[in-house]
Amino acid sequence: MKIALIGGTGDIGEGLALRWGLETTHEILIGSRARDKAEERARAYAQRLEDAGRKGKPAILGLANEDAAREGDVVVLCVEADHVVATVRSLREILREDQIVVSPAVSMVRRGKFFFYAPPPEGSLAAQIAGLLPENTPLVSALHTVPAHKLADLDTRLDQNVVVLGDDEAAKRTVMGLISEMAGLRPLDGGPLAAGSLVESITPLLINLAIVNKRKDLGIKFV
Amino acid sequence: MKIALIGGTGDIGEGLALRWGLETTHEILIGSRARDKAEERARAYAQRLEDAGRKGKPAILGLANEDAAREGDVVVLCVEADHVVATVRSLREILREDQIVVSPAVSMVRRGKFFFYAPPPEGSLAAQIAGLLPENTPLVSALHTVPAHKLADLDTRLDQNVVVLGDDEAAKRTVMGLISEMAGLRPLDGGPLAAGSLVESITPLLINLAIVNKRKDLGIKFV
Repeated sequence: MKIALIGGTGDIGEGLALRWGLETTHEILIGSRARDKAEERARAYAQRLEDAGRKGKPAILGLANEDAAREGDVVVLCVEADHVVATVRSLREILREDQIVVSPAVSMVRRGKFFFYAPPPEGSLAAQIAGLLPENTPLVSALHTVPAHKLADLDTRLDQNVVVLGDDEAAKRTVMGLISEMAGLRPLDGGPLAAGSLVESITPLLINLAIVNKRKDLGIKFV
Repeated sequence: MKIALIGGTGDIGEGLALRWGLETTHEILIGSRARDKAEERARAYAQRLEDAGRKGKPAILGLANEDAAREGDVVVLCVEADHVVATVRSLREILREDQIVVSPAVSMVRRGKFFFYAPPPEGSLAAQIAGLLPENTPLVSALHTVPAHKLADLDTRLDQNVVVLGDDEAAKRTVMGLISEMAGLRPLDGGPLAAGSLVESITPLLINLAIVNKRKDLGIKFV
């Protein structure tokens, strides 16, 4: 399968590229606004996978975001939350209904020391993004609570749940399958996209817990 | 310490009474609108604690809600979310600033198969309740994610985190201390009461996850 990481040069993109690159044979397409940068990062990720002992050459390619979005079977929106809506708008004409779009994005604001959830009028960032996609392109909301730094540190053993939301059951199963291919991540179906705010609002809480308790990169497990 | 459980005859009240009753020497005041019912439940809880092997007679007393609220050093609002605002209004004249009020309440709605967070205009149930308390009575928001049935089943070993929010640091520490006295519950300071919605909205997610995945009584751990 071809997995396009839009804005794949950032933190979460790096983590997903490395984990999927290490443990699967999927083709990873690193997207960036600047193709040069995407190519350079793709080479760097490939090197890190080799250093981590991956057998065989990983299939990691750097592309402009538009080309990555065109090629991917699954298109993960790894851009920062501030830019995700503009990015989706720019990709609207490119995306097709035989693709799956994945959003790990969370809209937060910082007030003083703490972070708070700041959803758009649609109720969640997932709902807003779904409204911008071509009519039959399914959106799956997932991967909000997996800390990017732990994901990108291949020496860290993960042990977390990932809540996955979506209205297209087949698309949701596909994304859950991909997530379960990353060792230590256990996807859990959390229901429809309409529950987007319930998942997105965990991220500012995780950050606040980390701040107050001087911990880092907290994730979540359901027990 | 005297812990008053307002509406302590319900699910969450039962769980808290049994866990604190089993593992501490705090005096537990079971409150109910009907004093008879409170007394009957207090006797039943005491019997269960004896059956569970508690050494010595547990200090569990049944009282009318108003009397429990007057007596408690810490007053936990165990009534159902639909009634919690009316209950707080009815206790407003009774509560004092040397007491601590604890809210585990969450305002949810069910739409079809799933549950959604439905906060009041104040932003969270915690914020609404805080606005109804006497001016200097501190509110601590906690215990939303601990499933009542697991809490009340003394054969279940708990292994969960409990996020605790509040603006009065001393009150928050006191409540965190009480929570950590229940074996297997590890409180974590989640910051100010203003973050109430971040914690309250986890509860409908836990219920949805349980529904979709045919699991029961899910709680959370931060890893």
